[in-house]
Amino acid sequence: MLNKQIKKLNKLDEKLSSIKYMQALLEWDGETIASKGGVNERSLVAGEASEIFFNSFINDEVKSLLDYLNEHKNELNEITKRKAELYTKEYEKIAKIPVEEYSEYAKLCSKSYAAWEVAKENNDFSSFAPYLEKIIKTLKKFMGYRGNEGHPYNALLEDYEPGVTMEVLDEFFDKLKESIVPLVKNLQNKPKTDLSVFNQKFDLDKQDKVSKHLMDILTFDQKRGYMTTSAHPFTLNLSRNDVRITTHYYENDLLSSIFSTIHETGHALYEQHINEEFGLSNITTGVSMGIHESQSRLYENNLTRNSKFWENNFPKLKEIFKEELDGVDLELWNKAINNAKPSLIRTEADELTYPLHILIRYELEKEIFSNDIDINELPKLWADKYEEYLGIRPENFSEGILQDVHWADGLFGYFPSYALGSAYAAQFENAMRKDIDLDTVLANNDMQVVADWLTDHIHKYGSLKTPVEIMKLATGEKFDAKYFIEYLERKFA
Amino acid sequence: MLNKQIKKLNKLDEKLSSIKYMQALLEWDGETIASKGGVNERSLVAGEASEIFFNSFINDEVKSLLDYLNEHKNELNEITKRKAELYTKEYEKIAKIPVEEYSEYAKLCSKSYAAWEVAKENNDFSSFAPYLEKIIKTLKKFMGYRGNEGHPYNALLEDYEPGVTMEVLDEFFDKLKESIVPLVKNLQNKPKTDLSVFNQKFDLDKQDKVSKHLMDILTFDQKRGYMTTSAHPFTLNLSRNDVRITTHYYENDLLSSIFSTIHETGHALYEQHINEEFGLSNITTGVSMGIHESQSRLYENNLTRNSKFWENNFPKLKEIFKEELDGVDLELWNKAINNAKPSLIRTEADELTYPLHILIRYELEKEIFSNDIDINELPKLWADKYEEYLGIRPENFSEGILQDVHWADGLFGYFPSYALGSAYAAQFENAMRKDIDLDTVLANNDMQVVADWLTDHIHKYGSLKTPVEIMKLATGEKFDAKYFIEYLERKFA
Repeated sequence: MLNKQIKKLNKLDEKLSSIKYMQALLEWDGETIASKGGVNERSLVAGEASEIFFNSFINDEVKSLLDYLNEHKNELNEITKRKAELYTKEYEKIAKIPVEEYSEYAKLCSKSYAAWEVAKENNDFSSFAPYLEKIIKTLKKFMGYRGNEGHPYNALLEDYEPGVTMEVLDEFFDKLKESIVPLVKNLQNKPKTDLSVFNQKFDLDKQDKVSKHLMDILTFDQKRGYMTTSAHPFTLNLSRNDVRITTHYYENDLLSSIFSTIHETGHALYEQHINEEFGLSNITTGVSMGIHESQSRLYENNLTRNSKFWENNFPKLKEIFKEELDGVDLELWNKAINNAKPSLIRTEADELTYPLHILIRYELEKEIFSNDIDINELPKLWADKYEEYLGIRPENFSEGILQDVHWADGLFGYFPSYALGSAYAAQFENAMRKDIDLDTVLANNDMQVVADWLTDHIHKYGSLKTPVEIMKLATGEKFDAKYFIEYLERKFA
Repeated sequence: MLNKQIKKLNKLDEKLSSIKYMQALLEWDGETIASKGGVNERSLVAGEASEIFFNSFINDEVKSLLDYLNEHKNELNEITKRKAELYTKEYEKIAKIPVEEYSEYAKLCSKSYAAWEVAKENNDFSSFAPYLEKIIKTLKKFMGYRGNEGHPYNALLEDYEPGVTMEVLDEFFDKLKESIVPLVKNLQNKPKTDLSVFNQKFDLDKQDKVSKHLMDILTFDQKRGYMTTSAHPFTLNLSRNDVRITTHYYENDLLSSIFSTIHETGHALYEQHINEEFGLSNITTGVSMGIHESQSRLYENNLTRNSKFWENNFPKLKEIFKEELDGVDLELWNKAINNAKPSLIRTEADELTYPLHILIRYELEKEIFSNDIDINELPKLWADKYEEYLGIRPENFSEGILQDVHWADGLFGYFPSYALGSAYAAQFENAMRKDIDLDTVLANNDMQVVADWLTDHIHKYGSLKTPVEIMKLATGEKFDAKYFIEYLERKFA
């Protein structure tokens, strides 16, 4: 009987994972090459796919299966136990939502994404506002169906970073504010270096060459992945053997695409390194947004903003941009890539000011899910907070509230994991340095050593362990923000 | 009651069309950018998608719905009647196949495609043979389940060109042989023109520019479609508003990509012009492979191999390839694009020899589905027939039996529609010339006039009418091979 039920679970796992694969492919396609004119059909299909997922998952047969497995938890091996645990959690999350509302919501997100794209391009918040309003309304309704105790925003946070609540985040952000705000203020007193050389014209094909070269250096497996461009860089794993990233090239900004590519490569490596034996399964993906972001941030900041990394790699860069970087030395390069300065766009922000961008979104999301706020007030609230924390104010919607895709996709509760990711990364770096001589490894460009450490301590688990367990396994300690604060102070004080 | 059942049909139609959309997207992705390393997961997903389609379609509820609608056929409007008719046909086609075998077959095709790609690249028939054998065996088994009367190959033909049987094709190909074989033999006696100028180096980016320009000229709607490259050019319609084509650029062959692009654009226009009101539905797609191919052939041959078309377009081509085409005049260009000569590769063949490539495949397919043939004998049979009909013999598998993807995808019975397409095209051209002054229209580069005629007489119907009905509506006559034979004789005698 138990064996039969385990087989049933694995069959279900394969089916649901296949539907998610197709949903991911729809998303990938929608955000890369899909025709603008096809948005209606595409959102219909997204809705049907959600309905198919819902009906394949939320039914009495699956319910009995999960109940049975939970009753026999102690007889299951670790993999089966974890699969059942994750599906149970997911089941409880959506079971009480009527299927029509669930699939309507998928259609809404698909249309909302398209509306956001147009709105951002036209700097027109008003055309996007009705979608945002509907998404927030629907999410609040869904939170009601779930019937969790406590604040509804906590339930959203739990979706992206299990174990993290508003209480945890309030404390985390308070500590950060305390240390970062003075550091940011202090930036004004530092001597300025002329970095305009990095904003001259950089040929896009050459930038592409640099991106692909760096992906190779970082050990991205090109046979099990792919890179292209999109408006907003992202990583998408169809499977551990087909992990796709996008980047974005700006002709007058060399650093942007380089660090976007490295960031997404960090995400991609996590997915590519998951234990092959897990197959196509719900455990074959990164365990949480925070842990995922820790991997991208680790590569983007802790590893490749370290000057050692460029000892070998900067000459290659100069070779590709022979004329453009003529006269630029390693010292100036390292200054440029570690330059901190308040700015309006989150994805372009430096390590120091980045958490403040997240803090702003966190405070707005708390507000949105605590009170009935007027959507049309949001752009002003957004701008006010930028003025308060960063001393600058967006002059239009596109560089303000319309800059991020997340809310258009219904991803509320997601942003905080970005700041957590940076903090986790600092703690992981600290642990890694106990095992390997990181500066020498970076100077030798031996990124396989780093990839192996990460695979062994973090990546291979996929979702087999919880974020809290992974932190403990990899570092021997619980999560502690002090590593990140020390890192920032060391670097920017 | 009737209204409720019609609503049910429309809901079913939307669901099944959505699943097909996702299957098409999987295929598109697999043939363009998907990672080689992800083939196992991809074929698992393809299998699950087939199973989902099967289970959503083949069940008692759908059976009763279709039975009910068929009983009330005379009370239905044309659209609903046709939807029900097409679904009934599709139902009968697969209902008797056990679902596991159906989804296993989808997985097999997905793996077989990947195996074919590698085999073709490595010129290694033996690595592909086991897949081909399994596909043929499975198809024979499936034909058995269907239990049609008569020859199993007739059932396959019916899938791609309803109304066309071996008897029809035998007669059609006999007539063609009678007229073409002497014309091909006669080619040897014609004076040869030196066309080597068209095989010098043509920059790929410039070829891409030419392709995109021609798509615009032919009125392809770029907002509702997309073009990229793949090993084997093809067209894929996710929906009428998202129609994708691929082409293939060879550095030393300018004509290849130009006419591939035009060919696929012909397919794409058919899909883009289907009546918008049909929505996401089983009738919103070309009605048969033969009618589809008639549209691509019409554009590729009847329209753009007409010298009038190039009066306006050749100067543009010379502008893009200023140095390469220096000294080439319109006369030489027209000779080059209408040059006929026996060759090994079907997709590169000229209009005259093309039907012989199809004849060879037709004869082999008849043989495969009539007798128990040894797969390993096929390459020799293939080569022998090329020698017999075209007087040339492939020297390796890649330019012989491995050149086409169709068999790797299980598409047996498909090839004949290519030759039928050419013949339909000639008949459509004849009818079009009664309504519009085609040569003047071409000379004026007014391709919207052509597109409008085709939309009005053929495209708009999608699958609402049968191929036989469309032929009658568009030309006032039944299909007659004489138009094609006259066309070829006029051109090549």
